[in-house]
Amino acid sequence: MVYGALDIGGTKIAGALVDAEGRVVARAQRPTPARESAEVMMAAVTSVVDELAARPEWASLSCLGIGSAGPVHTFAGTVSPVNIPAWRSFPLVDRVRSHPAVPVGVEPVLVGDAVAMAAAEHWIGAAKGVANVLCMVVSTGVGGGLVLGGSVHAGTTGNAGHIGHITVDQNGPLCPCGALGCVERYASGTAIAAHALESGWAPPAGLPATAREVELSARAGDPRALAAFDRAGRALAAAIAATAALVELDLVVVGGGVSQAGETLFAPLRRHLESYAVLDFTRGVPVVPAALALDAGLIGAAAAGAAASGLIREGTGARGRAATT
Amino acid sequence: MVYGALDIGGTKIAGALVDAEGRVVARAQRPTPARESAEVMMAAVTSVVDELAARPEWASLSCLGIGSAGPVHTFAGTVSPVNIPAWRSFPLVDRVRSHPAVPVGVEPVLVGDAVAMAAAEHWIGAAKGVANVLCMVVSTGVGGGLVLGGSVHAGTTGNAGHIGHITVDQNGPLCPCGALGCVERYASGTAIAAHALESGWAPPAGLPATAREVELSARAGDPRALAAFDRAGRALAAAIAATAALVELDLVVVGGGVSQAGETLFAPLRRHLESYAVLDFTRGVPVVPAALALDAGLIGAAAAGAAASGLIREGTGARGRAATT
Repeated sequence: MVYGALDIGGTKIAGALVDAEGRVVARAQRPTPARESAEVMMAAVTSVVDELAARPEWASLSCLGIGSAGPVHTFAGTVSPVNIPAWRSFPLVDRVRSHPAVPVGVEPVLVGDAVAMAAAEHWIGAAKGVANVLCMVVSTGVGGGLVLGGSVHAGTTGNAGHIGHITVDQNGPLCPCGALGCVERYASGTAIAAHALESGWAPPAGLPATAREVELSARAGDPRALAAFDRAGRALAAAIAATAALVELDLVVVGGGVSQAGETLFAPLRRHLESYAVLDFTRGVPVVPAALALDAGLIGAAAAGAAASGLIREGTGARGRAATT
Repeated sequence: MVYGALDIGGTKIAGALVDAEGRVVARAQRPTPARESAEVMMAAVTSVVDELAARPEWASLSCLGIGSAGPVHTFAGTVSPVNIPAWRSFPLVDRVRSHPAVPVGVEPVLVGDAVAMAAAEHWIGAAKGVANVLCMVVSTGVGGGLVLGGSVHAGTTGNAGHIGHITVDQNGPLCPCGALGCVERYASGTAIAAHALESGWAPPAGLPATAREVELSARAGDPRALAAFDRAGRALAAAIAATAALVELDLVVVGGGVSQAGETLFAPLRRHLESYAVLDFTRGVPVVPAALALDAGLIGAAAAGAAASGLIREGTGARGRAATT
């Protein structure tokens, strides 16, 4: 038995066949023709499915999960990825279902990419066996997914856990989404670099002003670079505390490119969390790095598909923080 | 068949027997001896149970729910109500279970009072049949409870939905809870009155400075009173938008004393919500007043007990917003 997975991103369209232990046993990939027409985009997806369907393992395909850059609409089966302009409310689920190689009875399951990452971490990663988890992706943007009561909580449209666009400063700067003071305005790699630049930091000559360069300066003790990561950690902490107060969390998992900064990000984040997560039931929630890296999107799409098809029995053996102490 | 209910508050201890349609068929009540010892407090609870147990309906008791002022700890069965100092991690569930009139096999179920209110609104009130709901109590403090996927989401310790203590301004004023810029610092009745006073408003001679008096001034057009409600509505809107982004909401229900101000509160709240809830899946969530008033705590405790005992089949017929449009 294998689980099929598609991962639709702004730079690549990836597909995989994943076994019941979460190992990728076959993969296919195409560059995303993000500036082309809706049908050219779809042709790239079809081509990935074609390649997977040619594998002998395809004969034992038992489910098919699709993770996509958001927004997605799980119920309608449509996607509108910000970075793929030709796809607006594009009926991706219908189109994948009607691919001739997809067996009758295998219903494609669509989730947002951050929800897929949460499903992957919960299945075989840092959140394995934990009942209530926030998984965050801190990268060019900030996303997230929730596990509640031992199951992924995708929400009605598949976008739940959207922590990058919750307000941590109601008087804060305008976010491109239209709201004020969103987490992403403080904690994304873009925001970290922008804040460091604004405070007078500059990357070494000839290098780009990225969060990675800010991180290196922070490690070297540059106070402006440290302040940019402190600001990011503070916004993440306020948002994590809010999430813990709203749903009760046993664990927070942080992945994505910016999380590779390690303690440069995690240390201020944990310090600020002590100031914002102060209720009896929010205090002391552990914050750990993601365990899965490059394949989290594919593994998560497979996990979401398998869970929706009842192949992964979610909730079994789930341990709550309270239950283990 | 009747459902037993206890509602532990800072001013009264109420008990009821509730029928399967949510009607209170018997009730008992004692003042809360909040400044007395733990055992005097417990004696008042016992006395309420005694009175209910003397009713003929008690013979058909099928479950027993307890709603309590928080914090509570559902898993441990303990309560630590802020306004009842003698009860700190008090084993209320064990004590109620061992009451001689409580039948073997009836396991008391403990939830926080705001979670109980959400359970009540979901059972027979404004949230009936709706899958994903935030119910808020805006009163002396601000509390809340969540319904997710058609079931009350109480969280591991029974405190989920704690929207009064999520940060909407990470640089905001210090909250008694220890965090910064909590919703309660803007939107509680206490905060509304305090802000109006600070801006130069005063109640009519001889009357107390309450949110109710601020409301009457706002209705008369006083700009300082209007500003206090605008500030409250804005913080509530930012918090509702955050909740919608995190879990996806179909409906928001607002109850509690301050919500009796009606459009004086709801109009600015809805206006600000348009600024903060701007994602495809957060935009346009309806915000409505609670349907239940005085008995919401008792009916909710009964609902929580019945749901935990499988007597109310939660999730059945639950309608999501996306599913109905």
